[in-house]
Amino acid sequence: MPTQDDIRAAAERIAPHIRRTPVFRLEPADTGLAVPVTLKLEQLQVTGSFKPRGAFNRILSSRVPEAGVIAASGGNHGLAVAHAAQKLKLNAEIYVPGPTPEAKKKRIMDTGAWVYVGGMVYEHARLAAEERAAETGALMVHAYDQEEVLAGQGTIGMELEEQAPDLSHLLVAIGGGGLYAGIASWYRDRINMVLVEPEACPTMFVAAMTGAPTDAPTGGIAADSLGARRIGEIAFATMQEWGGNSVVLADELILKAQRWLWDRLRIVAEPGGATALAALLSGAWKPPSDAHVGVVVCGANCDPGSVVG
Amino acid sequence: MPTQDDIRAAAERIAPHIRRTPVFRLEPADTGLAVPVTLKLEQLQVTGSFKPRGAFNRILSSRVPEAGVIAASGGNHGLAVAHAAQKLKLNAEIYVPGPTPEAKKKRIMDTGAWVYVGGMVYEHARLAAEERAAETGALMVHAYDQEEVLAGQGTIGMELEEQAPDLSHLLVAIGGGGLYAGIASWYRDRINMVLVEPEACPTMFVAAMTGAPTDAPTGGIAADSLGARRIGEIAFATMQEWGGNSVVLADELILKAQRWLWDRLRIVAEPGGATALAALLSGAWKPPSDAHVGVVVCGANCDPGSVVG
Repeated sequence: MPTQDDIRAAAERIAPHIRRTPVFRLEPADTGLAVPVTLKLEQLQVTGSFKPRGAFNRILSSRVPEAGVIAASGGNHGLAVAHAAQKLKLNAEIYVPGPTPEAKKKRIMDTGAWVYVGGMVYEHARLAAEERAAETGALMVHAYDQEEVLAGQGTIGMELEEQAPDLSHLLVAIGGGGLYAGIASWYRDRINMVLVEPEACPTMFVAAMTGAPTDAPTGGIAADSLGARRIGEIAFATMQEWGGNSVVLADELILKAQRWLWDRLRIVAEPGGATALAALLSGAWKPPSDAHVGVVVCGANCDPGSVVG
Repeated sequence: MPTQDDIRAAAERIAPHIRRTPVFRLEPADTGLAVPVTLKLEQLQVTGSFKPRGAFNRILSSRVPEAGVIAASGGNHGLAVAHAAQKLKLNAEIYVPGPTPEAKKKRIMDTGAWVYVGGMVYEHARLAAEERAAETGALMVHAYDQEEVLAGQGTIGMELEEQAPDLSHLLVAIGGGGLYAGIASWYRDRINMVLVEPEACPTMFVAAMTGAPTDAPTGGIAADSLGARRIGEIAFATMQEWGGNSVVLADELILKAQRWLWDRLRIVAEPGGATALAALLSGAWKPPSDAHVGVVVCGANCDPGSVVG
């Protein structure tokens, strides 16, 4: 896992390309909870998710070959890599599975990247991208299991600690675990992490049960952002070292959180972007009475009308 | 116009009911402009617009009679008053014109307020509400032309100056002028105000041309939030004392700004909420090269899907 110095270096490297996203403090009157809640509005990041932090850091830390960069993604990571390639004038190939939402495919294509659509889940796209990378020599930008990618995601923790220094707990959504592992690498023992995932794609839960990263189901409404086949090796090792509460949620609770974000706050988030908050709103995870809870709202690459549908 | 002390007192009075909304700093890479732009995300306020600041301050500064409170509104102010009445356990009657969007009517009704729908424009609702208030003795909470309402809106300026102390210019949308007059009452000569309104309901422009508040057209896509019949007396007096650039925009530029907010930032705003930003994005108003421009995004009470429609 990256060190704090790696994350500081990443922050400096990616600063020209990344937004410092705002935080939004909610009081008990806003949430009906007994404790304050601070949202990190990372869906307002460039490309509509946190992913460009890691993508830019990986690319800017590497010697990029003539073949450019390559990535596999359910959508958000692919868009981040495609966007970075556009800004840095690099060739990009992005592999996505068939069910990736049209809004995400279109945004990737709009960058000028080559987009390859095939297979049913992220894992199929990942295997195809690995094969292609071996042929062309393009720089693989992994969606979660690379140190430079995690150092980029860790800059969220660095920012958040400046913006809300007294957080006691932080809820993040888990797919491959890059967001979690990056942020945990920053905070280490200075915060209690709560790892939230849909029961339809519970990678960390399955790994915790079996004692190792293990294939898990990859279905449900948040599969396009959280549907990794298994938790990343680095994220699993991070979990073993630094721990964290694991929470598994029904899709219905995630849809309710999406709807709540619009109805009560006028924030649009995609299902994966609302997953961490859903653990809190549903009561699936209960904060201690002296907590100040942080929640990362991590993506909004959806049709905005879908949040009230 | 309210004094800075009035605004400080309002801030204290309304604090338990109001959110401190975040600011979001955009760099030239985000906007294509040469200067930084800081958005005040006031569409994230309770009820989805800035209006409850003024509504709560007016109600909490008054002795409310048994008949409760009454207001006329294109929607956002009525929702704010209805929400305040619900929280403070007061009777509320809200008058809105027929074309008020369903989303706004429904939110008002959901508070338990009585809603009277009639007439075609805000002015019709205002006249009916005045007549009713004379009968019942209910406390009128005016949408813009009352000192206590303006002191409440002025708390946006007080917050913003703390959050972004180096702003040189501030763009706000103009309807009745309450948002402008409240904020200008806070800043006085410490900022350059830019007043933006649709050419289809140009209250300040018409007043400036005629030298007094005068009836103006009340049409176009932002009429439900900016369609006052004429500028408020206090706002006009504020403009005469403290000045400000006036910018008038075609509806099409407002729609483009709404779309831009979603495409580039994943922010949803209603037409009136995107109007101030539209002046900047369209080039209708050009910042000086050493400016740091603030923009108030002031409402999001629309169907979220409408921003991409």
